Amino acid sequence: MISKHRLKRTVKFYETDAAGIVHFSWFNRYMEEAEHALWRAAGVSIAGGASRNIGWPRVAAAFEFHKPLRFEDEFEVRIRIDAIGDKSITYACVLVKDGARVANGSMTIACVERLPDGTIRSRPIPAEIAELFEAAPPSDDEP
Amino acid sequence: MISKHRLKRTVKFYETDAAGIVHFSWFNRYMEEAEHALWRAAGVSIAGGASRNIGWPRVAAAFEFHKPLRFEDEFEVRIRIDAIGDKSITYACVLVKDGARVANGSMTIACVERLPDGTIRSRPIPAEIAELFEAAPPSDDEP
Amino acid sequence: MISKHRLKRTVKFYETDAAGIVHFSWFNRYMEEAEHALWRAAGVSIAGGASRNIGWPRVAAAFEFHKPLRFEDEFEVRIRIDAIGDKSITYACVLVKDGARVANGSMTIACVERLPDGTIRSRPIPAEIAELFEAAPPSDDEP
Amino acid sequence: MISKHRLKRTVKFYETDAAGIVHFSWFNRYMEEAEHALWRAAGVSIAGGASRNIGWPRVAAAFEFHKPLRFEDEFEVRIRIDAIGDKSITYACVLVKDGARVANGSMTIACVERLPDGTIRSRPIPAEIAELFEAAPPSDDEP
Repeated sequence: MISKHRLKRTVKFYETDAAGIVHFSWFNRYMEEAEHALWRAAGVSIAGGASRNIGWPRVAAAFEFHKPLRFEDEFEVRIRIDAIGDKSITYACVLVKDGARVANGSMTIACVERLPDGTIRSRPIPAEIAELFEAAPPSDDEP
Repeated sequence: MISKHRLKRTVKFYETDAAGIVHFSWFNRYMEEAEHALWRAAGVSIAGGASRNIGWPRVAAAFEFHKPLRFEDEFEVRIRIDAIGDKSITYACVLVKDGARVANGSMTIACVERLPDGTIRSRPIPAEIAELFEAAPPSDDEP
Repeated sequence: MISKHRLKRTVKFYETDAAGIVHFSWFNRYMEEAEHALWRAAGVSIAGGASRNIGWPRVAAAFEFHKPLRFEDEFEVRIRIDAIGDKSITYACVLVKDGARVANGSMTIACVERLPDGTIRSRPIPAEIAELFEAAPPSDDEP
Repeated sequence: MISKHRLKRTVKFYETDAAGIVHFSWFNRYMEEAEHALWRAAGVSIAGGASRNIGWPRVAAAFEFHKPLRFEDEFEVRIRIDAIGDKSITYACVLVKDGARVANGSMTIACVERLPDGTIRSRPIPAEIAELFEAAPPSDDEP
């Protein structure tokens, strides 16, 4: 079972804004990139259930920003599963550059299925997915 | 029949980059926004054929950049149909700020349908769409 | 003094993702667009202090997502000042479509100044800005 | 001297649109990512001249799109210098997935300097940059 992942990343020029730093909307994208890498590290794609009409919409996402990121900065997105319930998963995320915490975030996703009439409803996480993941406590090595 | 449209637009902060100007990747988005507004002005949505598995992928897009745009700049995206063929439409586009040309672009889209096996193939533009649009020559009032 | 603003908005095609809905990273951008419109409604640009090396980095941002938005959906971003302190402003934000709540968010920005050596430090909100804004309680008309 | 570079890339979820494929505006970003990687491979950052008020605005960019890219597709951005003049550089770019050409593009950038009064003017490419790069013919191994 897998519970955490670290994604190395470099700031792209189009991620910066006129203040000279990464626009804050990108942090949710960085967190999602790390989530999808976590799933691939577990051997599955988060899009793998689409053929069975299963999806994973985001229910909540939050970030606190401590330090700016600039063009070509190298940083790490450290994501871990904070809680896994019957129908949802909550992640905690820390961005680290040069050993210092840049930002920390959280995100909750829900498992849903699309019914034949097109409506969406919450559903339990499929067993073959739930058995891949487990929650992890905050690591000592996270700044 | 409709052949051109003008879209007023203000630069959003997240469209700027660390050079203090709009990142060049946004111009294709501005051009597409104006295209979709042109279709709505003709009384249809470009997404309206999705239920019949008809779509409009972009085949080519190009821009020349003359002047920068900055945060909160107000500008106009002037789009016109440059050519409409049996299976494709080509647009010409000029961005204007304070009477001066900021950039000019072009874009060609193709009409395609998705077959039951999931493959995509080119197809003629449906008659009810083709009859809405006609090509227009460059206007004298375009800088 | 101004304390709230409503921004009308239409979903652009490039804001959607392969799940057919607006990608969740856009909600922070919608909230910021409404913030900047609020400032303009107060007669100033949030970028207006740049010449005096004053800026407004985001300290925190959060969203809860209730309903999806799709291409060409029309919605409203209702932002209000939830709290204004000596050195920061906190906004609350509700996105509404067809009278239903799509998402609700919050964002805190800090006032900073850039020193001659390039470092950034927190500073009090300039009086001429502070006097433009005041906090507002949640409105009865917000869903 | 360096004249070409290959960048490996995976499609991120936020790069897709409601048609289920990468939005065409991303191809200019992919091309720019490869350009910046080419410069780093030459031992410099394209942002390295900012302290001397030298910048590299895009003058033109174009793409033809042949095949779609989808979430988690792995592809390669192959960029080469097509021409290097006194004041500008033109790149040619091919995106390849599974040995097939996805798209091909081109981009021209100009060397400019910011004058003390804030205006921008074209200027010769600094010798220490010009000596790093040389044009390359299209490779046989490019599809």
